[in-house]
Amino acid sequence: MRHTISVLVRNQPGVLARVAGLFSARGFNIESLAVGETETPEVSRMTIVVPGDGSVLEQVRKQLSKLIDTIKVQEIEESACVTRDLMLIKVKAPSGHRGEIIEIAQVFRADIVHLSEKAMIMEITGPEDRLDRFINILRPFGIMEIMRTGRVAMMRD
Amino acid sequence: MRHTISVLVRNQPGVLARVAGLFSARGFNIESLAVGETETPEVSRMTIVVPGDGSVLEQVRKQLSKLIDTIKVQEIEESACVTRDLMLIKVKAPSGHRGEIIEIAQVFRADIVHLSEKAMIMEITGPEDRLDRFINILRPFGIMEIMRTGRVAMMRD
Repeated sequence: MRHTISVLVRNQPGVLARVAGLFSARGFNIESLAVGETETPEVSRMTIVVPGDGSVLEQVRKQLSKLIDTIKVQEIEESACVTRDLMLIKVKAPSGHRGEIIEIAQVFRADIVHLSEKAMIMEITGPEDRLDRFINILRPFGIMEIMRTGRVAMMRD
Repeated sequence: MRHTISVLVRNQPGVLARVAGLFSARGFNIESLAVGETETPEVSRMTIVVPGDGSVLEQVRKQLSKLIDTIKVQEIEESACVTRDLMLIKVKAPSGHRGEIIEIAQVFRADIVHLSEKAMIMEITGPEDRLDRFINILRPFGIMEIMRTGRVAMMRD
């Protein structure tokens, strides 16, 4: 079971350290964390994915709410939101394999952002399972590097 | 001046807290941070954007290298890499404005991922300045929510 928590925080120095410290001090794992700007410059939003049952979620929520820089803590229910993850993936692409890789990219609606004699970098966004399938289908060609952002989520209404 | 640093770390509990603590203890700001999975399950990659001059960069690099969970620290030079940021943006979209917003989305190659009677959620990826321009052009319609992942970067070769 995994939970996605969205936290609005004041953009103060050290806020990330306090949030991360809260998790590590209590032995809660963080599966992924993304911090980015919001519509208000002095406010950032963190999307944190936490494995665990309902009691873990409840404790995390309580502890986060206690932090002085926290403005709002919200659990994001998967069924009511749009979730996305961004991945850059570099694969070996010698001339004999390029055509096949490009066809796979088209099926997955991935963008080719760089192509050299030996390698290709593709960009893909989507729910995590789609990105995982893309990785698996590219594995036989030789994956050189993967860079993922971690999940971001937004409530539909 | 801003620097982009890519750090490979062992996926240990508390590693994010140690990295974030290192920054806050020394008064270094973090402009954005993205943590995600890599091609190896027990290794994560953090992309950290730090404002400051060359001496800040040098200190950050040294301190990060000292952490026990750090595998590799690398500065990413903008000219030699692909940088991307993912944004979900929710704007007011009553029927009279929908057509115009959809046209703007097409120009920016943004995907419409949700549309209801009142609001539209779009997904866009690209370098930060492109996302900033997209926000500015949508501002007059009424921005309800913005969620960005922070920058990820990958060396071209």
